Amino acid sequence: MFWHLLTVFAATALHFSATGEASECLTDGFPLVRNVSKLPQGSFEIPGLSHTTLAGSVLHGMKEVEVWLQTLAPGARTPIHRHSCEEAFLVLKGSGTLYLTTNMHPEFPGNPHEFRIFSNSTFLVPIDDVHQVWNTNEQEDLKILVIISRPPVKVFTYDDWFMPHTAAKLLFPIFWDAVCYQTPLERDEL
Amino acid sequence: MFWHLLTVFAATALHFSATGEASECLTDGFPLVRNVSKLPQGSFEIPGLSHTTLAGSVLHGMKEVEVWLQTLAPGARTPIHRHSCEEAFLVLKGSGTLYLTTNMHPEFPGNPHEFRIFSNSTFLVPIDDVHQVWNTNEQEDLKILVIISRPPVKVFTYDDWFMPHTAAKLLFPIFWDAVCYQTPLERDEL
Repeated sequence: MFWHLLTVFAATALHFSATGEASECLTDGFPLVRNVSKLPQGSFEIPGLSHTTLAGSVLHGMKEVEVWLQTLAPGARTPIHRHSCEEAFLVLKGSGTLYLTTNMHPEFPGNPHEFRIFSNSTFLVPIDDVHQVWNTNEQEDLKILVIISRPPVKVFTYDDWFMPHTAAKLLFPIFWDAVCYQTPLERDEL
Repeated sequence: MFWHLLTVFAATALHFSATGEASECLTDGFPLVRNVSKLPQGSFEIPGLSHTTLAGSVLHGMKEVEVWLQTLAPGARTPIHRHSCEEAFLVLKGSGTLYLTTNMHPEFPGNPHEFRIFSNSTFLVPIDDVHQVWNTNEQEDLKILVIISRPPVKVFTYDDWFMPHTAAKLLFPIFWDAVCYQTPLERDEL
């Protein structure tokens, strides 16, 4: 029922206004070609983050892919997290570290591998692998493009790499979706 | 059967080599973090195109999203085409024109709308809408990032905007997938 309602919402949402300004919550559609520098951005609950949704489920009615542009200030990092979707990255500027657990312990992520990421590099995070992106470069912002499948994303966050999978916290809707996310009607409202 | 075989192929393909060089056809996996400037690129059959697959179905085992980096030289253009998948664009450099038919004539695309695209702009092409991206800027390359769902993409191409939908030509696998695409086994080979 939840997904059905969401599908109906999304199906009606992918429409453009010929001349209108960008509408943050799709009340009046949005221009087909949008200037990224004029799109809404926010830091939400991640210190040092600047996030812009270029193509979103909740914002633009996408059903299958979502595209984010994110800048992490020196020292800023994502939560340790996982999600059941494909994820691809392109580093547009700066450098940093990807922490990723492959072949996880069945009960907790365990010590992650460290991968250096750098300007004009690309990488994939396999479905459900626990990971974290950290701007470990003290001199420069880290600017990344993030592509995910199966929007809107459901994220499970960990306080540390040894927190049990069963204790990971569900983050849904994610910060930037929460602004416009419409809660499906409760049964007694129907 | 086709999709089943493809799924099996893809499921076995998303693996990384810890230290190996990029393998164009996934015979030995690929490094997790890859330098985009060292990835294979080609012009294939589109004059003035430089295409690199950053995250691909055939190349990297992606099942749900695919990411391409493309540069179109001045005057270069994609075919007039459509596909049954979501598509999002980010213009990284240059400018040009998006031709797009919305509310198509049922028998042929018809005259498209023209949209100016520019550096740091983003746009979405709705599923099955016929479109063409053209670098109409005579001075500068047009560099775009292209994200699609439902890989590997099946493209239908048109010679012009008044060619009947029924005459559109299926292009599968697309040029850059053809290099590594493995044809599913024929029935009599099983």
